[in-house]
Amino acid sequence: MRPQDLIRIKRDGGEMPEAAIREAIAGVTDGTLPDYQAAALLMAIFLRGMSEQELSVWADAMLRSGRVLDLSSVPGIKVDKHSTGGVGDKVSLCLAPLVAACGVPVPMISGRGLGHTGGTLDKLEAIPGFHTDLDVDRFIATVADAGLALIGQTSDLAPADRKLYALRDVTATVESIPLIASSIMSKKLAEGIDALVLDVKVGSGAFMKDLDRARELAETLCGIGRRAGKQVTALLTDMNQPLGREVGNANETREAIEILRGQGPDDLWRITLELGAEMLVLGEVAADHDAARARVTRARDSGDALERLRRCVELQGGDPRVCDDTSLLPGARTRREVRADRAGVLARVETEQVGVAGMLLGAGRRSVEDRIDHGVGLTVHVRIGDRLAAGDPLATLHITDETSAAAAEETLRAAFVIEDEAVQPPPLVHEVLR
Amino acid sequence: MRPQDLIRIKRDGGEMPEAAIREAIAGVTDGTLPDYQAAALLMAIFLRGMSEQELSVWADAMLRSGRVLDLSSVPGIKVDKHSTGGVGDKVSLCLAPLVAACGVPVPMISGRGLGHTGGTLDKLEAIPGFHTDLDVDRFIATVADAGLALIGQTSDLAPADRKLYALRDVTATVESIPLIASSIMSKKLAEGIDALVLDVKVGSGAFMKDLDRARELAETLCGIGRRAGKQVTALLTDMNQPLGREVGNANETREAIEILRGQGPDDLWRITLELGAEMLVLGEVAADHDAARARVTRARDSGDALERLRRCVELQGGDPRVCDDTSLLPGARTRREVRADRAGVLARVETEQVGVAGMLLGAGRRSVEDRIDHGVGLTVHVRIGDRLAAGDPLATLHITDETSAAAAEETLRAAFVIEDEAVQPPPLVHEVLR
Repeated sequence: MRPQDLIRIKRDGGEMPEAAIREAIAGVTDGTLPDYQAAALLMAIFLRGMSEQELSVWADAMLRSGRVLDLSSVPGIKVDKHSTGGVGDKVSLCLAPLVAACGVPVPMISGRGLGHTGGTLDKLEAIPGFHTDLDVDRFIATVADAGLALIGQTSDLAPADRKLYALRDVTATVESIPLIASSIMSKKLAEGIDALVLDVKVGSGAFMKDLDRARELAETLCGIGRRAGKQVTALLTDMNQPLGREVGNANETREAIEILRGQGPDDLWRITLELGAEMLVLGEVAADHDAARARVTRARDSGDALERLRRCVELQGGDPRVCDDTSLLPGARTRREVRADRAGVLARVETEQVGVAGMLLGAGRRSVEDRIDHGVGLTVHVRIGDRLAAGDPLATLHITDETSAAAAEETLRAAFVIEDEAVQPPPLVHEVLR
Repeated sequence: MRPQDLIRIKRDGGEMPEAAIREAIAGVTDGTLPDYQAAALLMAIFLRGMSEQELSVWADAMLRSGRVLDLSSVPGIKVDKHSTGGVGDKVSLCLAPLVAACGVPVPMISGRGLGHTGGTLDKLEAIPGFHTDLDVDRFIATVADAGLALIGQTSDLAPADRKLYALRDVTATVESIPLIASSIMSKKLAEGIDALVLDVKVGSGAFMKDLDRARELAETLCGIGRRAGKQVTALLTDMNQPLGREVGNANETREAIEILRGQGPDDLWRITLELGAEMLVLGEVAADHDAARARVTRARDSGDALERLRRCVELQGGDPRVCDDTSLLPGARTRREVRADRAGVLARVETEQVGVAGMLLGAGRRSVEDRIDHGVGLTVHVRIGDRLAAGDPLATLHITDETSAAAAEETLRAAFVIEDEAVQPPPLVHEVLR
């Protein structure tokens, strides 16, 4: 079928034939499908959607556009977690060692931060010497040894997705649930995992601001996974305020290590525990969620999880002493407090703007070429529903470059909305889709 | 505004700002807007449409993407006619000389045939020596002298349209009324005309198969013209059977010359007369349509119109003797009759297939690079509603290449549908939009 005939079918709301979808994705991969035809097809998909059947073929074609990892040499049910991204989301760093310590191998391929959201790779690279660009053999060996490995996307996994994403970025076709879902799932399924837990963020700091859209995305992701024969569950978790207290790279890594030591903020621990319990049940090392929670908690209290992280850091070239002495992580030059300018109740956080403030300090990227400073960031001291006096600290900026600090401070101050009436804090987990 | 932000507005059904539309069309023209962004925008326009305001800016930006002819040196109100294309539509060849003979200058820029439709340029080039590629100065001089000139699109008129059309062709974004209408009007308005008569074809041989779509296109075309300050009227005319008897190039040119001699088929004369009357009223040389029809008829009967064509052919390098001796036009090698295989009434003609049969004989192009044979074609002997005996001639094929004749014959035979019940012939003119 000629590409224009495939485009016409989708344009008119029809069902794209499987062979034509596979041909189009192959054309994207090897460059024989011109960008202008891919762009027209993406816009037609954006506006017309995809059926379950189309979506499943589309995602499968993307996943098979490159190498599909074979983790069969690692015993056990391999389970990964994917978050749709938010502010202060360092869950992967504490979750993967906890789950690995419970006997479920976690082969995790993560991304970098862009815009208001952070990325696991950037946080890991705050650890001196840590390498996220392992080749596939070393990745598999690290999973086999430490029970987990934390690396970046390699160029041979789902290359069609990388090309399509670059095109979507400049053709206003990013915010499409079928395109987002097939992008995520093609990369995750190429990891060679057996099961997946999805952390779909919803709220002011998430890509999905409302619960209906987040649920639609979660269902679409789960549908693709199930049709690919994988066990997938999704948690819709709250992103109406930053997760934990820290936003940045070194400071988020420090906070994740604190969780493994039984310290750290309660919300971060509880989300980690819920996601970990899901992974243990999918990994068939716990009979039910209560048993799984108990086991994750024991892995923390026994120090086993921290030991797993230490081993992973060592195998990936990093300095394992950071697990015991987080002062070895890079820091900022100076600090500055942002204080409440009135008394009242913290009613709302413009969480995306908190992420933007971090980016302005140098912790994140405006565009993919930007370099980041691992030592800067911010610490949030308040949570929705907290009663505040005028002058109470809202957040602490960790600053290295003074010129960017003013804009960051202004952005951050505007992000905290203080009102008079008492406010019910949002739940941590909105829904679970199994 | 970044191109992706403009695309996003249209994608979401919003109104594109004038400056951003002009920037996009300028980017198409000078190549700075990448094809993939143009393609995504075209698909968004295809699926979301354009408001009157957007459409008027879009068409204006396209028309100003190149040279806009200045015909002010030619006295009088310059009026052109545009047909949306059909089978056997040789109206321009007889209409332009008739209108010119009545004192209305006709600067006509035409196209070539593609697929089942013929093109005026191809028909003209059947005249030995005739040049359709005059430069602008000679075009204007020919209009001033003969009262008409018949040329092809020059590369400096509406170049944005040519680029966008090439992109639409391969991205399944051709059949969009706003995109079709702005393409037609940008080219026509760049001719420097004062008024325009549109012949919007409707039926089995037209791009618009039903009256509602044809009316929508006609209204859209008229709207763009009026907002550009031009007088535009549109006739919705019938294309449920070929116009006149001849389909091809030399044979259509011969039939048009016969019309100017007071011969030729009645349907072709009546359509020509109606379109001519509109042009005379717009050109303000006739007070009303009745007076205009009488004047067009006099221009035929006096031989003035044929004299205008003779002069035009001469000025454009052709052999003017064809106007008096059509046997100077190229012919085919042999003929073959296609006969009715049953008795009955001609109920329906699959007119597009009649055009395809002509193309198969060599009279038309499958793709733009194909060469055509000016001497081949076909003559249709029957009209809808005619009562036929088995064995009555339906059409005569004018053949040069025997190998293509069999497929053409089969296609043509299937195009004539004979049934038992009496059938009312379709009207020649369905509607007039003034």
